[in-house]
Amino acid sequence: MKKVAVIMGSDSDAAQVGKAVDTLKEFGVPVEAHVYSAHRTPEEARRFAAQARENGFGVIIAAAGMAAHLAGAIAANTTLPVIGIPIKSGALDGIDALLSTVQMPSGVPVATVAIDGAVNAALLAVQILAVSDEGLAEKLRERKESAAEKARSADRRIAEQFNK
Amino acid sequence: MKKVAVIMGSDSDAAQVGKAVDTLKEFGVPVEAHVYSAHRTPEEARRFAAQARENGFGVIIAAAGMAAHLAGAIAANTTLPVIGIPIKSGALDGIDALLSTVQMPSGVPVATVAIDGAVNAALLAVQILAVSDEGLAEKLRERKESAAEKARSADRRIAEQFNK
Amino acid sequence: MKKVAVIMGSDSDAAQVGKAVDTLKEFGVPVEAHVYSAHRTPEEARRFAAQARENGFGVIIAAAGMAAHLAGAIAANTTLPVIGIPIKSGALDGIDALLSTVQMPSGVPVATVAIDGAVNAALLAVQILAVSDEGLAEKLRERKESAAEKARSADRRIAEQFNK
Amino acid sequence: MKKVAVIMGSDSDAAQVGKAVDTLKEFGVPVEAHVYSAHRTPEEARRFAAQARENGFGVIIAAAGMAAHLAGAIAANTTLPVIGIPIKSGALDGIDALLSTVQMPSGVPVATVAIDGAVNAALLAVQILAVSDEGLAEKLRERKESAAEKARSADRRIAEQFNK
Amino acid sequence: MKKVAVIMGSDSDAAQVGKAVDTLKEFGVPVEAHVYSAHRTPEEARRFAAQARENGFGVIIAAAGMAAHLAGAIAANTTLPVIGIPIKSGALDGIDALLSTVQMPSGVPVATVAIDGAVNAALLAVQILAVSDEGLAEKLRERKESAAEKARSADRRIAEQFNK
Amino acid sequence: MKKVAVIMGSDSDAAQVGKAVDTLKEFGVPVEAHVYSAHRTPEEARRFAAQARENGFGVIIAAAGMAAHLAGAIAANTTLPVIGIPIKSGALDGIDALLSTVQMPSGVPVATVAIDGAVNAALLAVQILAVSDEGLAEKLRERKESAAEKARSADRRIAEQFNK
Amino acid sequence: MKKVAVIMGSDSDAAQVGKAVDTLKEFGVPVEAHVYSAHRTPEEARRFAAQARENGFGVIIAAAGMAAHLAGAIAANTTLPVIGIPIKSGALDGIDALLSTVQMPSGVPVATVAIDGAVNAALLAVQILAVSDEGLAEKLRERKESAAEKARSADRRIAEQFNK
Amino acid sequence: MKKVAVIMGSDSDAAQVGKAVDTLKEFGVPVEAHVYSAHRTPEEARRFAAQARENGFGVIIAAAGMAAHLAGAIAANTTLPVIGIPIKSGALDGIDALLSTVQMPSGVPVATVAIDGAVNAALLAVQILAVSDEGLAEKLRERKESAAEKARSADRRIAEQFNK
Repeated sequence: MKKVAVIMGSDSDAAQVGKAVDTLKEFGVPVEAHVYSAHRTPEEARRFAAQARENGFGVIIAAAGMAAHLAGAIAANTTLPVIGIPIKSGALDGIDALLSTVQMPSGVPVATVAIDGAVNAALLAVQILAVSDEGLAEKLRERKESAAEKARSADRRIAEQFNK
Repeated sequence: MKKVAVIMGSDSDAAQVGKAVDTLKEFGVPVEAHVYSAHRTPEEARRFAAQARENGFGVIIAAAGMAAHLAGAIAANTTLPVIGIPIKSGALDGIDALLSTVQMPSGVPVATVAIDGAVNAALLAVQILAVSDEGLAEKLRERKESAAEKARSADRRIAEQFNK
Repeated sequence: MKKVAVIMGSDSDAAQVGKAVDTLKEFGVPVEAHVYSAHRTPEEARRFAAQARENGFGVIIAAAGMAAHLAGAIAANTTLPVIGIPIKSGALDGIDALLSTVQMPSGVPVATVAIDGAVNAALLAVQILAVSDEGLAEKLRERKESAAEKARSADRRIAEQFNK
Repeated sequence: MKKVAVIMGSDSDAAQVGKAVDTLKEFGVPVEAHVYSAHRTPEEARRFAAQARENGFGVIIAAAGMAAHLAGAIAANTTLPVIGIPIKSGALDGIDALLSTVQMPSGVPVATVAIDGAVNAALLAVQILAVSDEGLAEKLRERKESAAEKARSADRRIAEQFNK
Repeated sequence: MKKVAVIMGSDSDAAQVGKAVDTLKEFGVPVEAHVYSAHRTPEEARRFAAQARENGFGVIIAAAGMAAHLAGAIAANTTLPVIGIPIKSGALDGIDALLSTVQMPSGVPVATVAIDGAVNAALLAVQILAVSDEGLAEKLRERKESAAEKARSADRRIAEQFNK
Repeated sequence: MKKVAVIMGSDSDAAQVGKAVDTLKEFGVPVEAHVYSAHRTPEEARRFAAQARENGFGVIIAAAGMAAHLAGAIAANTTLPVIGIPIKSGALDGIDALLSTVQMPSGVPVATVAIDGAVNAALLAVQILAVSDEGLAEKLRERKESAAEKARSADRRIAEQFNK
Repeated sequence: MKKVAVIMGSDSDAAQVGKAVDTLKEFGVPVEAHVYSAHRTPEEARRFAAQARENGFGVIIAAAGMAAHLAGAIAANTTLPVIGIPIKSGALDGIDALLSTVQMPSGVPVATVAIDGAVNAALLAVQILAVSDEGLAEKLRERKESAAEKARSADRRIAEQFNK
Repeated sequence: MKKVAVIMGSDSDAAQVGKAVDTLKEFGVPVEAHVYSAHRTPEEARRFAAQARENGFGVIIAAAGMAAHLAGAIAANTTLPVIGIPIKSGALDGIDALLSTVQMPSGVPVATVAIDGAVNAALLAVQILAVSDEGLAEKLRERKESAAEKARSADRRIAEQFNK
């Protein structure tokens, strides 16, 4: 199976971004986490991106806050799909990171998820790998069904609590 | 090759969304365009999404404006990767569509591109298919190189124009 | 009397949304609360909406946060009036939920109240039922008068505190 | 049948707000349009609202731009459901009118629709009257089906245009 | 001397709005505080405004949060200068109150100060009264000089702390 | 009668700001217009402000766009009431000018009106002068009544157009 | 004298960015313009930045729109001062470019000017060179005085037009 | 070596702004801190700015919150480069200060850094001085390399934590 890379711009984002790693491992997807900064270690970020495909990666997840250039800097150097997680940090609570990640110019897309959406970034990576992997697709269906079942339980609890 | 679906919420978005179709065709990716509205034909949207994988689709692109629920409504009914294009329309110029598309709750990701980012949505779809298709990956590299070459030509023109 | 449905997208919103249930009960309006998610249990949401009128409901209240599609998804499947409560959650404090709820395209309205406006959603539902129910209208007048009386008391307290 | 009032803050909004009147007439709903300004003729607005129920109105639609107080001022003086249309005007393109209309404090709801959402305001008014009027409900179902049919036609046109 | 009225929409704003009362008293300006709500006691607000000039008021300060209509509702019913204080409350931290207060349509101005700017509202009221009251003008000059002196002391402390 | 100064930061704002001058002249208020820039001629702005009271001014209106410092710079140098008009210009359509004008720190208020609210700035200036000038107060009442009468005419026209 | 580089992300920004080149030439500052894209030719951008100091540059100006990463990408690879011009383009009118440019994380500053502020970017570059170049400083003083003189002329024209 | 001035609008910003002073001292750059307020001590601010160059300063850093006019007021009175730090304070969390600082009109630039970006403001000042000071340039390179090394250590820690 292709690997998924989870890149964060700073290890201060590890708690948030770690959820992406955990989710990928739940699916049995091989994952590799790194700290590469678009501004402090741009060469490491570039080199990793440029070699990611030949190094066996299928998807790259990149998480950064504020003027979040990391996902774009990765995407500039690979043709793999790059998923961007805007991180909530600083005075503007992540709206700067969202716009810096999603508003990419024509030619270099970044697949952006919600602010602090680490779990969804991982699920999206699994969905991408599952396009050609029926086993993963089946696991996604199971998780979807399990989430639906949890919502149905919640419905029963709420009905019990309020509907009398 | 897996097909890519391009769904728009209204045919008034056809000019914008058509660029995604054109880009996909440039890559030789089989594409199918539809008008399904999350609010006017929700059942058609649901059914399409639910059967998309078995019908040979690998990626679904969904474009909508204002309270843009289409991509999320599609994603609720499939485990395929869903790409959302927020369309600029109405009084708020697309910021409503962007937030309605990208801020999905945990469990159901939508891979969001820039407002009116139809070309990037198509490129992202190609990148996703290219994870397991070396031929497509090669075409992406060529397009990337061609874009770089255009930027280098522009640099020469600008140098000619300004640097004397 | 027609019933009012109070649907929440997740039971994590129960504390906030519960105020709507409580307010409806104060008016003696029959109420039924449910957890239906536009993204995790879309079929349950659809079915509930489609059958709500024949099942004796007069109004549906739907509460959700972030890319809040729930009210719109309900409204797509019924001709009953649907009231949307945008819930404050996530990094953007509810502005995403507000725009996702209120900016509905032409043809499918959602009657939107303030962010976290659960009490007002309930009052609006009562007002809707009271269009053809003079008893409810009388109770609304009493509550309005009681709120005015409380404001007058506050005025006296403030006058006492500051005007000497 | 109860009447619907359509109040605009200024006759410069007549083109936009007229769509609400037209839509109501399509449903055969008796409608009365007025210009009452929360700031220039507050007494007229107040008196109209205070007497609306006894004068045979079931719903009041109020449209205003900028610091749009009209819907709230109406709602303060009636227990009828009040629908607010934020009008796009001035430098901020209607986001001021949206927030001024929807963010009502607890106790006095305004059912807010999208910026310039005059048609949806009318449809919402019809939905409210239709809670206890099966004939109107049937007309709403027909219009919903007709909108769906239009979307299906658009789908066929788009398929013709793009899918070959 | 003319009196200044300080009106708040709710006594939950008393702590914040009380600073305006205190500041006015420091200047020896006669002040009267009230709770009048544009939505819960609109008639009291209207009557107070309409009679304020003949009752000896020179300026009216009005403070409210969210869809803050109070200052506008007061201004609609008087030709006295009305000062609006947008109060920070609810999910949007006062940006709704700011726009609802300042974006008044042509013909009915509200002199708006910063969000939670109660002290400045009071100073502005004193400035207005001081246009024709040299004694008050002198007190304003003294306060201005005192504020400058405090800034100069702070400069000396900071120089001591940092410049060595 | 005290004079009103109308200061603009640039003569490119003359068309917009001229409405303030015209409105003041309609009331027979003596007015003096100037171009003083907080950034290009700060000393002229400062000197004008510092001497305005002794030079017979009662109110200063200041209009500027973008990072609109003019009203604040004037207010820093006078104890007269200063009215700020945020001008719509540049990429952000005046929201920058609004925040730069209204969000003044404690101690130095600016009475802010709507973006491009030149007429309201003039009316507010007249209201301020009218606190101690019954003749002006009477003219304000007449204008208010005339505006109400215009709204009533509009109501009749709209009734004619729509209510048949 | 050190040279100033003016880098634009795309030659579609040439009209806007050309003003920076023109302004620099007015001061006799040697200037070199280039098109380097952070996303299409990242290696060219990196190499230019890394060698800029040894190649005789003193300041780098970088202009880009939307998710404007260019200035940050340059700043990551040099210790020269980098000035960022956010360009107005796309649906969000430059607020995305502003936040993407200015909200840089600690360690890698970008000196950001206003949206489309090409002339100011050039003036800032001249100011930086003028720190150690008295001749340039003198030219800046002259330009400042000339701008003041133009404002004074405008004041006289406005006085003529309005003050009679 | 030229000195750097660090001006804050209020000593309540000292904790935040002190980081700029500390960073400058780490580089051995002579620094002078002051409290000058654009609104409370405008004359002191003006005089400092006007004499800064002849008093041996090379760069001025100015930090202020809300309607942050300080950097602009300084820039109006000097031809030295002025760096603005928007401070997070008040209800709007610094977006007002950011726009008030960065959106300067043509002719008077302010080099703006991120909200609360005191360290970056200091680094930018050092970069400016280092244009003509090879020793400082060397220190900047060392700090850049040290930041990169820290990022590499973080990468190793994260790899240890997640990649097994």
